[in-house]
Amino acid sequence: MVNYPNGRKYTAEKAFTASTGKRKTNSSYGNRGMTLEDDLNDTNLYYLSRGIAVIHKKPTPIQIVQVDYPKRSAAVIKEAYFKQASTTDYNGVYKGKYIDFEAKETQNPTSFPLKNFHEHQIRHMEAVLAQGGISFVILRFASTDEIYLLEAHQLMEYWTRMEQGGRKSIRKEEIAGTGRLIHAGYQPRIDYIKILDDLYNLSS
Amino acid sequence: MVNYPNGRKYTAEKAFTASTGKRKTNSSYGNRGMTLEDDLNDTNLYYLSRGIAVIHKKPTPIQIVQVDYPKRSAAVIKEAYFKQASTTDYNGVYKGKYIDFEAKETQNPTSFPLKNFHEHQIRHMEAVLAQGGISFVILRFASTDEIYLLEAHQLMEYWTRMEQGGRKSIRKEEIAGTGRLIHAGYQPRIDYIKILDDLYNLSS
Repeated sequence: MVNYPNGRKYTAEKAFTASTGKRKTNSSYGNRGMTLEDDLNDTNLYYLSRGIAVIHKKPTPIQIVQVDYPKRSAAVIKEAYFKQASTTDYNGVYKGKYIDFEAKETQNPTSFPLKNFHEHQIRHMEAVLAQGGISFVILRFASTDEIYLLEAHQLMEYWTRMEQGGRKSIRKEEIAGTGRLIHAGYQPRIDYIKILDDLYNLSS
Repeated sequence: MVNYPNGRKYTAEKAFTASTGKRKTNSSYGNRGMTLEDDLNDTNLYYLSRGIAVIHKKPTPIQIVQVDYPKRSAAVIKEAYFKQASTTDYNGVYKGKYIDFEAKETQNPTSFPLKNFHEHQIRHMEAVLAQGGISFVILRFASTDEIYLLEAHQLMEYWTRMEQGGRKSIRKEEIAGTGRLIHAGYQPRIDYIKILDDLYNLSS
């Protein structure tokens, strides 16, 4: 285990992915035992602690079926199921701007499958853009540890292409061409705010 | 049961409050069988469907301890606990602005107990304001069905007064004087956006 500077505890929830409930396979993500989600959470904690931005991951949506209420102790959920998220996983505020994004990774070395996103997430991103928010996705190619920021309006173009019968994935060269490479660092690990400064002229 | 225009299904999760896991007592909320949370969710759905604003309630944070993976069916959470939220329950975007709020109700007819909020929620609201976001609370007095919007900076003043040894609640007259009364309607039920238009000059 990496000894983490923020002293954050491991929580059981982190071992499950939000939408499917499948166990994460961390082994593919270098030797750090860290997931893209971990790196983003640490990045957001860094932003928060420095007063740079307030961005949080939303809790995993759960459908609760049965709860026990033992005397003199906390309520225990005895039966529940993972629900599909109706929005994106991350949102918050940076310099007054509403920030909204989803983060996904693929084992595919040459293209990013669009099945990583759901129709209602695309519709959510559209609604955010219509309200003047900033929306994007963070895409990681696990085999090469390359991370890209792709703006929502560009993702939508690839989504529309698929809907019109085109390819069901985005070629890596397309992402490299229309998105921005994020160089992974130590603190913050995935400095996407720097990319937003540049894209939307927010650094001044 | 009120026949709801949006056709939204009842979900089991709605029967539990986020922070405590206690069962909600709907009986106190008029004869509608609706909670403040239900009314706000319907209000947000109204805003979303009309393209007015994109604001969602965050899922209830859950600490997952044990998950079963039955063959050929969905993962079942067998043991989990309600966690305390580290932020506020609602956030989103309206006319490019980041919107962030918490909603609480009290049975107390004359004052609103500050124990309804947690220290880290107050700190979160401070951080949101520091980033230029719009932050507030929606407070409901159940006995008279009066609903107020109180801006975060005003809540903080009452919070500071308590920390300095003052009263542990906000008098209703204080809320009426420093907050804004929201007249409950049919569609939308709790039109807080109208109040924000007025407070922050956003309607133009």
